[in-house]
Amino acid sequence: MSSPEVITEQAAGPEQLHELAQQLRVDSVRAAAAANSGHPTSSMSAADLMAVLLTRYLRYDFDAPENPANDHLVFSKGHASPLLYSLYKMAGAIDDEELLSFREFGSRLQGHPTPEIPWVDVATGSLGQGLPISIGIALAGKRLESADLRVWVLCGDSELAEGSMWEAFEHAGYAGLDNMIAIVDVNRLGQRGPTMHEWDTSSWAARAAACGWDVQEIDGHDLEAIDTAYARALAADVPAVIFARTKKGSGVAAVEDQPNQHGKPLADPEGAVEELGGIRSLRVAVQAPPEAQPYGVAEVPVERPGYEVGEKVATRAAYGDALAWLGSIDEKVVALDGEVGNSTYAERFAAKHPDRFFEMYIAEQQMVAAGVGLQVRGWKPFASSFGAFLSRAYDFVRMAAISGADLKLCGSHVGVSIGPDGPSQMALEDIASLRAVLDSVILYPSDANQAVQLLDAMREHRGISYMRTTREATPVLYEPGESFEIGGSHTVRSSDGDEVTLIGAGITLRETLAAADQLAGKGIAARVIDLYSVKPVDAEAILAAAGETKALVTVEDHWPEGGIGETVAGVLAETASSTPLVRLAVSGRPGSGPPADLLAAAGIDAASIVAATERALARD
Amino acid sequence: MSSPEVITEQAAGPEQLHELAQQLRVDSVRAAAAANSGHPTSSMSAADLMAVLLTRYLRYDFDAPENPANDHLVFSKGHASPLLYSLYKMAGAIDDEELLSFREFGSRLQGHPTPEIPWVDVATGSLGQGLPISIGIALAGKRLESADLRVWVLCGDSELAEGSMWEAFEHAGYAGLDNMIAIVDVNRLGQRGPTMHEWDTSSWAARAAACGWDVQEIDGHDLEAIDTAYARALAADVPAVIFARTKKGSGVAAVEDQPNQHGKPLADPEGAVEELGGIRSLRVAVQAPPEAQPYGVAEVPVERPGYEVGEKVATRAAYGDALAWLGSIDEKVVALDGEVGNSTYAERFAAKHPDRFFEMYIAEQQMVAAGVGLQVRGWKPFASSFGAFLSRAYDFVRMAAISGADLKLCGSHVGVSIGPDGPSQMALEDIASLRAVLDSVILYPSDANQAVQLLDAMREHRGISYMRTTREATPVLYEPGESFEIGGSHTVRSSDGDEVTLIGAGITLRETLAAADQLAGKGIAARVIDLYSVKPVDAEAILAAAGETKALVTVEDHWPEGGIGETVAGVLAETASSTPLVRLAVSGRPGSGPPADLLAAAGIDAASIVAATERALARD
Repeated sequence: MSSPEVITEQAAGPEQLHELAQQLRVDSVRAAAAANSGHPTSSMSAADLMAVLLTRYLRYDFDAPENPANDHLVFSKGHASPLLYSLYKMAGAIDDEELLSFREFGSRLQGHPTPEIPWVDVATGSLGQGLPISIGIALAGKRLESADLRVWVLCGDSELAEGSMWEAFEHAGYAGLDNMIAIVDVNRLGQRGPTMHEWDTSSWAARAAACGWDVQEIDGHDLEAIDTAYARALAADVPAVIFARTKKGSGVAAVEDQPNQHGKPLADPEGAVEELGGIRSLRVAVQAPPEAQPYGVAEVPVERPGYEVGEKVATRAAYGDALAWLGSIDEKVVALDGEVGNSTYAERFAAKHPDRFFEMYIAEQQMVAAGVGLQVRGWKPFASSFGAFLSRAYDFVRMAAISGADLKLCGSHVGVSIGPDGPSQMALEDIASLRAVLDSVILYPSDANQAVQLLDAMREHRGISYMRTTREATPVLYEPGESFEIGGSHTVRSSDGDEVTLIGAGITLRETLAAADQLAGKGIAARVIDLYSVKPVDAEAILAAAGETKALVTVEDHWPEGGIGETVAGVLAETASSTPLVRLAVSGRPGSGPPADLLAAAGIDAASIVAATERALARD
Repeated sequence: MSSPEVITEQAAGPEQLHELAQQLRVDSVRAAAAANSGHPTSSMSAADLMAVLLTRYLRYDFDAPENPANDHLVFSKGHASPLLYSLYKMAGAIDDEELLSFREFGSRLQGHPTPEIPWVDVATGSLGQGLPISIGIALAGKRLESADLRVWVLCGDSELAEGSMWEAFEHAGYAGLDNMIAIVDVNRLGQRGPTMHEWDTSSWAARAAACGWDVQEIDGHDLEAIDTAYARALAADVPAVIFARTKKGSGVAAVEDQPNQHGKPLADPEGAVEELGGIRSLRVAVQAPPEAQPYGVAEVPVERPGYEVGEKVATRAAYGDALAWLGSIDEKVVALDGEVGNSTYAERFAAKHPDRFFEMYIAEQQMVAAGVGLQVRGWKPFASSFGAFLSRAYDFVRMAAISGADLKLCGSHVGVSIGPDGPSQMALEDIASLRAVLDSVILYPSDANQAVQLLDAMREHRGISYMRTTREATPVLYEPGESFEIGGSHTVRSSDGDEVTLIGAGITLRETLAAADQLAGKGIAARVIDLYSVKPVDAEAILAAAGETKALVTVEDHWPEGGIGETVAGVLAETASSTPLVRLAVSGRPGSGPPADLLAAAGIDAASIVAATERALARD
C-alpha cells in the first residue's frame, strides 16, 4: 500500500469526508473477512457518523492516551469494533496489518473492545452499558475536574431497549451533563430482525427530551447534516443526543438494509470493497486536545475512626465512618450510593465530602456504571447499596472486571440477620456471585475496627473489591490498631487441645464465639477463625486447622452455594485433607422476624453450631 | 371491636370513601406500631388511591384467589405492605389480629409481600420489579387467554429511577396492553430524601406517553379525581398510567410530607390513630370477577427431536428443537427471548408456535420479569438469551425464587469456547450465580439428545431451573432414548482398573473424553463422569469415584468459583474423603480467538487435563 495521504480538519471537504467514510467501510469489511467473523454491517451504518467525528470534532492525542484533556470516545455498541479499529488505523494509531489481526488469538483487537487497547476506556459488548458508563466519565469532568471534557458515545438502536440506557438519559439530564454527546446509530435492524421502532425515532426523541437532553433526529448518511448536528450538540448547555437514521451495511447493495446480515462477514468481501471504491489508506490528523486544566478537591480533615472493644457497632456504620476518613486522606476517593445512604451509611461520607458524593437514586446499574466511568478518570469509586440490590448491577460488575476496572463495592443488610424486612432485602447470594468475578476480592468484616482497616485495604487495592456489611450492631472484638489484610484471617481463639475449628465471618463470627463458649462448657475446646477475607482466602490457616483439629465447621449467613463453606471445601479437597467439614449455611426459605429467630431457623446460630459440632465429633 | 359495617360499591359515597381511606391509614399505622418496624408513611400516601380501587373497581374473589377471572393487584412498591394487608382486612380476607402479626416470625404478613399469602401473585420489595412482572401477567391475558383481565399495579415514584420500569413502559406500549393500569404514588420522598422530580410528574408523563400509554396526572388525595382517573384508565385502549401526587404520611401532621420518616413506625401511633379519627372496622364487599372465559392455543404437532450418535450438533440447537417439541406436547409451554433467538435457537419454537413466543428485545430484565408474570397465570415460561446477558436479570431471578416462581431459563454461548466474540459474550459466572438461588436446578447438557431429555425434565419441574448450552457443535454421545434426570450423572467410561476420575459437562466432557484417550495411551485408565446436573448433584457417583479411583479431576468452562469444581469439593469435604481433587477451570483473562486456543489458554483442554492427571497421580 502507498504511504497514506493525511487529511486535516481544514482540508476535509465533503468529498474527502465521503472517501474517509468509505475507507472505514472497506476496512470494516476487510477486518471481518480476515477474521471470518465480526459485525461489518453494524460498522458500515455508522461510518459516516464516525468519519465526520474523527476528522472535524474529536480531540485526541493517540500518542498520549493518558492525557486527561483528551476527548473520550466510547463505543456503547461494542460489536461495531471493526469500525472502531478502522478509525484507529485512519488516525495512524495502528497499521493495516494489525487491523487484519482482528479477533486472532493474542491480538488486542478482540471481538469487542477492551482496555487492552490503550485508547479504549472500558470494555463494551454487553449492550446498554457504554452510555451509563460514559455518564460516570462525564460526571468526573463536570462535577470533579471542571475540565473542558467531552464524552462522545456511539450507541446502537437495539440497545435502547435496555432500561440501563434510560437510567443514563435520566441521570445525565438531572446532572446537567453538557459535556455528553450520544450518537445513536439507528440502523433499524437488530440481531434477529427489526427493532421495535425501526426508523421512527420520535418515541426515543420525546423520551430523551423529557429527560432534559438536546435532541436531534437526522439522516445519518448526510455528511452535512452530521456536521451541523455535532456543532449544535457541542454548543448545547445540556447533554445532547443525535438520533441518526442509517442503513445497516450501508454502501454495499448485497447487505444494505437487508435482514440476516448481523454479526457475520460479508459473503463477497472483495466485491464489496470494489463496490465501495477499493482499498484506501487515507489518514486523518486528529485534532490535539487543549491544555489539561488543573483542579483541586475540597479537603476536610476527618479522624480515623476507632471503636472500643465491647462497644456495639454495626459494620455498616463503620463503613460510613471509614469512608469519610478515607476521603480525607485520599483526595481520589469518591462515593456513590443508590438512595439508601442512611442505611449503608454512605451519608457519613456525603456529609464530609459533598463534592465527591454522587447520589445515584434507585438505579443500581447506573450507580455501578458511573463508578466504572469515574475510575476511567483515575478516581477511586466506592459504590454502596443493600447487598441484595447490587445483584441488579451484576452484568455491570462482570463487565467492569473485563475492563480491569478499579471498583470498590459495599453491600449492606446481608443475610437473614437483617430480620423483619424479609427475604427481598436479604443478600444471600452476594458472596457466590461476586466471588465468580475475575480477580475479585471479597471481604466480610466481623467488627467495626476491622471494617475500617479492610476498607483502607480496598482503597489501596486496584481491581474489583467488595465489602459485605452487617445491619445489626455487633460487639467490637478487635483493638483499633489491629492489622488485617486482603487474603488474611484471624484466629480469635486457639489452644493446643482444640478439638474442632469453627469458621465464621461477620454476624456468624459472633455466633461461633457464643458456640465456642457453650462447647467449652461441655468440655470441647474450639478454635475460632475469623475468615474476614473470603477471596482470596487464607488457605494456610484453614489447612493448619484441618491438621490440628478433628473437624471444621463453617457458618455463613448466605446460601450454601458458592460462599464460605465451599471456599473452605475447595481448599481442603485440593490438598486431600481427610478432616471432615460441616458447612452451615442458610437452609430453607427465610421470612420476617427478629434476627435471632431467623438465625436459628436458618440453622446458623450458636445452638446450631454446637449441635453440628457434636455430631461431627461423634462421627470422627 | 364491633362487627364490621359492610360497604358495597353502590353505597360508597365520598364520605364513606374517606372513612375507608382513613381506616387504611389507621391500620397501616397500627400494623407498623405492632411490629415496631415497617413503612406506614409510604402506605398512608396511597390510602386514598387504594380505598377507591378496592371499593369501586377491583374485581376479586378473596375466597377463590385461583379464579382466573380475578383482577390482579400487584404492589410494585412492596414496602407499602401495611397498606396491602390493611386492604385485606378491609376486604374481610384477614382479621385484625392477623393484621397485627405483621412482621412477626412465622406470620405470612412479612415485611414485604410474598405469595405465601394467597392473594399475592409475586414477591416484591426489590423496587422496579412489580411493574415489569405485571407486564407478563397482562401479556398472558392479552396474547394467550384473550381474557377480560385487568392488572392493577401500585408503583412508587422512587422506583421510576430503575431502568426496568422503563423497559416495562416500553414493552407494554409496544404490546398494546390495554388491560394494564399503573398507579404511581408520587409522594415526593424516597428513603433518604426527595426524589429527582418530586411532584413534577411532567417528565415521567411525557416519557410514558412517548411509550404509547394513556397518561393522567392527578391529585392522589382527591377521591373524585381518583375515581374519574380509574374510569378513564379502564376505558383506554392502550395501557394506562396515573401519576398521583400524594403526601407521604398523609393524614398525620407529625409525619405528613416530612423528611426522615421513611421505613419506621410512627413515634406516636396512638396520637396518629386519634388524629385519623380512631380505629374503624369497615368492610368492603369487593366486586366479584366476571365469568372466566375459556380459551385455547393453536396446536402444531412437532416430532420429538433425536440425533444420531457421532453427528455434530450444538446443544443450543437442541434447545430450540426440543422447545418446539415441548410446545407441541404441552400447551402451557411459552417461550421468551432477548432478541437473540437465532443464536439461542428459540426461533425454532417461534417458528412452530408463534402465538406462544414473546420477543422481548434486548431487555433481559423485562424478559425474566415477563416470564415470572406468565407463570402467575399458569404458563410454563422458557426464557433464553446468551448466558452472559442473563446476569443482567440476576435480581429478577433472585426475587423469582422468593416468589416460588416456576421459571425455566436457558443461557447459550457459555464459556471461553465461544471463541472469537471475546469475554463480554462468555458466560463464566452463570453456574455460580444461579446455583446461589433458592432451590434452583442447574443443568449443563453434554450432547444434543441429553439436552432434549433434560429440557423435558425442566418442563416437568416446578421452580427455577437453568440450562446452560454450548455454542459449538459437539459430537452426539448418547442414543436418543437414553434417560437422564435432574440430580443424575452419567458415567461415560468406567473399568475396574480406573486410576483417575475425570468429571466434566458440556464442552469439557468432550475434552475429558479426549484426555481419557490420551491417558489410555500412557497406560492410565480414566473413568469419565458426565456431571450434566450440577445442582442437585449426584453425590453418590462422586463418592463412589472418590472411593474407587486415586484422584478426581473436574474440568469446567467457567470461573473456578462456585461451579462444578466447588460443587464436587463440597461433596468430598463433607464426607471427609481423602481422595485428592484437582479443579480445572478458566484461569486468566480470556480474549478472542479460535475455541481450541482459548480452551488451551484457559487450561481446560484435553492436554491440560492429561497434565493435571499426571501431576495428581504422581502426588498420590
